[in-house]
Amino acid sequence: MKHGSFAIIGMSLLIWVMAACTPGFFEGTSTTPLEQVVKGPLATVPDKAPVPADNPMTPAKVELGKMLYFEPRLSESGIISCHTCHNLSLGGTDRIPTSLGHDFQTGGRNAPTVLNAAFFNLQFWDGRAASLEEQAEGPIQAGVEMAMPKELAVEVIKGIKGYSPYFQAAFPGEEDPITFENIVKAIAAFERTLITPNDPLDQYLRGDENAISAQAIEGMDVFRLKGCMRCHKGAMLSTGELTKFEHGQDLGAFKVTGDPEDKMVFRVPTLRNLPLTAPYLHDGSAATIEEAIHIMAEVQVDKEINLAEEAAIVAFLESTVGDQPKIVIPILPAD
Amino acid sequence: MKHGSFAIIGMSLLIWVMAACTPGFFEGTSTTPLEQVVKGPLATVPDKAPVPADNPMTPAKVELGKMLYFEPRLSESGIISCHTCHNLSLGGTDRIPTSLGHDFQTGGRNAPTVLNAAFFNLQFWDGRAASLEEQAEGPIQAGVEMAMPKELAVEVIKGIKGYSPYFQAAFPGEEDPITFENIVKAIAAFERTLITPNDPLDQYLRGDENAISAQAIEGMDVFRLKGCMRCHKGAMLSTGELTKFEHGQDLGAFKVTGDPEDKMVFRVPTLRNLPLTAPYLHDGSAATIEEAIHIMAEVQVDKEINLAEEAAIVAFLESTVGDQPKIVIPILPAD
Repeated sequence: MKHGSFAIIGMSLLIWVMAACTPGFFEGTSTTPLEQVVKGPLATVPDKAPVPADNPMTPAKVELGKMLYFEPRLSESGIISCHTCHNLSLGGTDRIPTSLGHDFQTGGRNAPTVLNAAFFNLQFWDGRAASLEEQAEGPIQAGVEMAMPKELAVEVIKGIKGYSPYFQAAFPGEEDPITFENIVKAIAAFERTLITPNDPLDQYLRGDENAISAQAIEGMDVFRLKGCMRCHKGAMLSTGELTKFEHGQDLGAFKVTGDPEDKMVFRVPTLRNLPLTAPYLHDGSAATIEEAIHIMAEVQVDKEINLAEEAAIVAFLESTVGDQPKIVIPILPAD
Repeated sequence: MKHGSFAIIGMSLLIWVMAACTPGFFEGTSTTPLEQVVKGPLATVPDKAPVPADNPMTPAKVELGKMLYFEPRLSESGIISCHTCHNLSLGGTDRIPTSLGHDFQTGGRNAPTVLNAAFFNLQFWDGRAASLEEQAEGPIQAGVEMAMPKELAVEVIKGIKGYSPYFQAAFPGEEDPITFENIVKAIAAFERTLITPNDPLDQYLRGDENAISAQAIEGMDVFRLKGCMRCHKGAMLSTGELTKFEHGQDLGAFKVTGDPEDKMVFRVPTLRNLPLTAPYLHDGSAATIEEAIHIMAEVQVDKEINLAEEAAIVAFLESTVGDQPKIVIPILPAD
């Protein structure tokens, strides 16, 4: 069993080393490496995120994006920022079932982690945004989140004179750089730095056989053999694609498209940093990894999973906590 | 005029250099240097805060305190931490008139800055806490703030197993170190690092005549001659003491003591980092430094202040933004 799994891992490692050598994979310049990232069963987290051609990353833009990510004045109340629900102290989430936003209203879904979100094309649980830029437009304006109309967001940021040099540096040559489009571009550029390479699983995939426990290696095998890797594969342990998941009441992508085919269709979430991002599932209904495994086993792969198998899968999934981004809190301009 | 003010500043500098040479002043080991800090008209911000004998600072305790300062699970909702209202991106405040807390309830007073709070003995606008430790007990439990009973706070932190080694390191030798007392001790130890030395005013007080503008120097004179320095003096530009301030409806310290003498009595706030901490006054009713000056001139010193004088005082007070603490966001234990 164990030798067999090593051979399979060896093979996939080889495939992945080859994929990793494709130009553009590690340089963070290719726009759509997702095809590469999700091929094959498992892959290491790249040390750079892909960067879209229309929003190149510069240190000035990343710095501005960090400021805006932490900017509570982008909310109607003045106290909610991107960081409130995508808290970098807490694995890029808020660790509550569904987020609390403006007026303490609850959102309908569990806040997905911002960590490694840069490796996905589709954003949000229902995949309704096609980029980080498009994603960032949503929560700022959503009435139950930051509740700030985009015209007002621009007005507020323009009203804080201290932002002007930062926008000029981030978007050089633009006559009127403080726009909603540039606000979300800067936030997305910062988010592309929020990646967590080098977790024990990746160390193992790179050849350090002692990086994860024998139980975790066994769990990887169970995870594959039960069919979990049909969706949870690649560097993100996710295809990043939309899949039917008939759990709870939420109609998923159907609410966006109105297409009956999209009922209860959700984007496959990443399992990287899983121990940091409880509770789980789109509705936050699974408090622990164990509960999530049970629900997935029943609803999604229709397989029995015994206690030893469950413990092994948990050990495997606990090997996904990578190097967390080291973020110095930005000092925001006063006025 | 200007020569006169230089002579006065020179005198006070000399007094302060002498005060600063008192043993214990800069070492951060003395328990009550406040008497020194508030003597004389002006003084530079010490580069270390005083440390009480019963809560010595260690790197392990400061690190734990930073974690707890950023810990939203210390609130009933799971999304409010000390940092929500005492935001280090925003001068240690929330920049709204009165804070929003649990269930978006509004507190009655403007959040005082945490920056340099370590130099005060009395904490809160009404001075009801005698130390940072005592202060930290309040907002965690207050129903309109974090709304977390202290027994539950301890239970929550104990439930997060990853905290255990941090408490052991911060409180070595204690059999059961996760207590509410130790939670607030650690937070207070972290807060003693949140000091902002070296602002332009201090550079000027140390002898760099070009560190602040001629207008700011003039403003310092106006500020003194109008009587503002009766309360706003010393390193904090505050005596740190309680003073009658008959503005608004809030009865101040009376609400704590019931003593008619304490009606509308408030602690004199620091003016350090003033440009970062708008809006002003205990009720946040002054949106700008100019508005605050007008109210203080009328209510407190009963003096006319013309536009040139006001502009000069503003220039003086704008020289109070010191080096902001460089804080790397803590990664909090998952469970």
